[in-house]
Amino acid sequence: MKHLIDIKDLSADEIFNVFSQTLEIKNNSKKKNSKILRGKTIANLFFENSTRTLVSFELAAKRLGAHVVNVNIGKSSTTKGETLRDTIQTLEAMQVDAFVVRHTENQICEKIKSWLKSKTVLINAGDGNNQHPTQGLLDVFTILQHKKNTEELKITIIGDIKNSRVANSLIDCLHILGNKNIHLFGPEKLLPVSHDKAHIDTSMHAAIENTDVIIMLRIQKERIQDNNIPDLDNYHSNFGLNRTSLSHAKPSCIVMHPGPINRELEISSEIADSTPSVILEQVQNGVLIRQAVLKLLLG
Amino acid sequence: MKHLIDIKDLSADEIFNVFSQTLEIKNNSKKKNSKILRGKTIANLFFENSTRTLVSFELAAKRLGAHVVNVNIGKSSTTKGETLRDTIQTLEAMQVDAFVVRHTENQICEKIKSWLKSKTVLINAGDGNNQHPTQGLLDVFTILQHKKNTEELKITIIGDIKNSRVANSLIDCLHILGNKNIHLFGPEKLLPVSHDKAHIDTSMHAAIENTDVIIMLRIQKERIQDNNIPDLDNYHSNFGLNRTSLSHAKPSCIVMHPGPINRELEISSEIADSTPSVILEQVQNGVLIRQAVLKLLLG
Amino acid sequence: MKHLIDIKDLSADEIFNVFSQTLEIKNNSKKKNSKILRGKTIANLFFENSTRTLVSFELAAKRLGAHVVNVNIGKSSTTKGETLRDTIQTLEAMQVDAFVVRHTENQICEKIKSWLKSKTVLINAGDGNNQHPTQGLLDVFTILQHKKNTEELKITIIGDIKNSRVANSLIDCLHILGNKNIHLFGPEKLLPVSHDKAHIDTSMHAAIENTDVIIMLRIQKERIQDNNIPDLDNYHSNFGLNRTSLSHAKPSCIVMHPGPINRELEISSEIADSTPSVILEQVQNGVLIRQAVLKLLLG
Repeated sequence: MKHLIDIKDLSADEIFNVFSQTLEIKNNSKKKNSKILRGKTIANLFFENSTRTLVSFELAAKRLGAHVVNVNIGKSSTTKGETLRDTIQTLEAMQVDAFVVRHTENQICEKIKSWLKSKTVLINAGDGNNQHPTQGLLDVFTILQHKKNTEELKITIIGDIKNSRVANSLIDCLHILGNKNIHLFGPEKLLPVSHDKAHIDTSMHAAIENTDVIIMLRIQKERIQDNNIPDLDNYHSNFGLNRTSLSHAKPSCIVMHPGPINRELEISSEIADSTPSVILEQVQNGVLIRQAVLKLLLG
Repeated sequence: MKHLIDIKDLSADEIFNVFSQTLEIKNNSKKKNSKILRGKTIANLFFENSTRTLVSFELAAKRLGAHVVNVNIGKSSTTKGETLRDTIQTLEAMQVDAFVVRHTENQICEKIKSWLKSKTVLINAGDGNNQHPTQGLLDVFTILQHKKNTEELKITIIGDIKNSRVANSLIDCLHILGNKNIHLFGPEKLLPVSHDKAHIDTSMHAAIENTDVIIMLRIQKERIQDNNIPDLDNYHSNFGLNRTSLSHAKPSCIVMHPGPINRELEISSEIADSTPSVILEQVQNGVLIRQAVLKLLLG
Repeated sequence: MKHLIDIKDLSADEIFNVFSQTLEIKNNSKKKNSKILRGKTIANLFFENSTRTLVSFELAAKRLGAHVVNVNIGKSSTTKGETLRDTIQTLEAMQVDAFVVRHTENQICEKIKSWLKSKTVLINAGDGNNQHPTQGLLDVFTILQHKKNTEELKITIIGDIKNSRVANSLIDCLHILGNKNIHLFGPEKLLPVSHDKAHIDTSMHAAIENTDVIIMLRIQKERIQDNNIPDLDNYHSNFGLNRTSLSHAKPSCIVMHPGPINRELEISSEIADSTPSVILEQVQNGVLIRQAVLKLLLG
């Protein structure tokens, strides 16, 4: 494991290794002043707006003692006509040890990897609608904080599956760990016709019935093509999670969401803010997973 | 003292405790590399533009060894439709130990406090035209660097009293410490009709006559309602501090201003840049007061 | 050496002192966690967009253990009508130890120096089309990594000489070290008629013939006055560096560029990305030179 670009590059063993590092960091989480990455430099290169993922990576790196540089892309040389390749190679020449990259373009990290001249580490923090591997890891880690294993669970993902890098990384991670019972549901135009790792359901009821874990996806208005925009007025009654739709799940079912939430659109506040929701645990685990990944790749 | 939201929540003893911590830090100010807050995380959430207050809090936290995150609000999830409550709870889940908040909305910190789920500390860095408690503390601390006590002083505040959170926190702080001789003056529409803790004066001469301390307020064009905008052409001659208007004060009178200054509008450069002015001392003390507050709340 | 404003303020001995510090840091570059500037505060004040120079200074300061504040000028008090002088004096009162300033105005650092009240250090990171002294130092340092000395070299600078602070600082630095063989070439309107420290050439061939070092300058569209914009369609064939134009230089000739590069405009990718190019070495040396300068001025 030299980079973290696509969760499919990881074996089950490597995933469990990330989780065991995460647990170790979680158990020592009173101590947020490690020296493990002292002298290392992490550059956050975010070409899309973000608070939670950027701050999560920033805190993960700082709590491990690294130097962190948030490159202000709006002000960057790319606006002076410099190519992304030159930006990357310039920062690499400044002896940056790892890039954390978010970009609108799918597979951009494969390009970036081909440009690297030294042992600089590359972490994909979300590329287009392709992958968001640390999100997949934190989602599965959070499930394992509540369930004995993932293989035997029914896991339901609801919403804009087609445009979701979060769904991709989650499905891939569960698949690597042996799960065969992933169910997908959402508006017809935002749902694939078939999926080699998951069942496509035809009703909210079927998707949720007797399920162990529900992951609600954010309606990302900025990522949906014009002709596919769902009927937002009726979205909640058709595809939203609330007390009624949740009632078909197992009583022990947990509810997840990658955030930021559109309240009363994909999820009711009543559900988001009460016991079945582990949304804020996901956020907390996100920093820890990123610490584990940085430690394993750079430590 | 668990948060610092409104200076009226403090007792005289608590205020003097902040001052004695500030003095201790000032006397050790060669050493700007304390480890008191090592491992703690401070998040600056500024919803209004600011340089001086933001940098002041940032330096205070860094000099105490904390991790500091400046959340870029313009780029934040709030622009993706996330509520402020979700932003706060998300950052809190990342184990932020203190929020420093500046916001246009009065009393926003009471709302934020009600959303906190753990022992996260909240520091008000200015809410609407309500309170700016660390400014009040640094103003009174600066007065006490020049005068034996505050109770027996005549203290004059001039300018846009109505819209000034700086005036509010300063008046409240002086009141808690026992001062009964605060005088207010300014354009009629920017002056309250009466004040339970201060005298409203009817002329610049009356306000300044024999005074010990003058605090000039900044004309904040962005905060004044349309129909209340004063006559800026004549503002300086009517309400500005210059050699002539200052001549009625005591010879030992000191001159203060929270900054940034509108030169030749509320204050002449001649006064701002010469002996009676302690404006830059206020700036210096600001960092120290914020260090003391962070240390007391988090240390 | 109290500030670094103009490279002409340095003697040859002082320049070599910077270089020997740089070499020492380079030889210890595995260790990027020095404590030399622990407790010091560096404020980066960039009034022009920049990635590479800003990140370079930020990393230099952090790797020496300093607190770094990047003042967000767009959000700063200067937009509230505060003068630059007040911004500087305010930050200085917060006990900033050094300002790193980039500004569109020539000689702005002389003004800023006159406003400083204490021993605060001033480093010019580029002022208008006047000086960029750390760039001049890193350029000459990079030459000396490849050549025994600078005095006996033919050195060729090509492009927009008139608007280039990079060219100014480089020419001044080479001149101080005794070089008499600097050649300049570029579009007629962007070339001075005469130069007291350099030869003005009348053809690309003459400028490059038998040269040891070529520095290609960036066409800075934002800095060129309307009536002087060169013919960009034919720029590369007239003034660009490529295999053909480079063929007249010595075989050992090295190629430099301050970046960011306009590929296929002033330089072909073939040259920029192959052996004669030391462009990325310049970037790497830039951080080291800035570390040396900070250490000498503040350590």
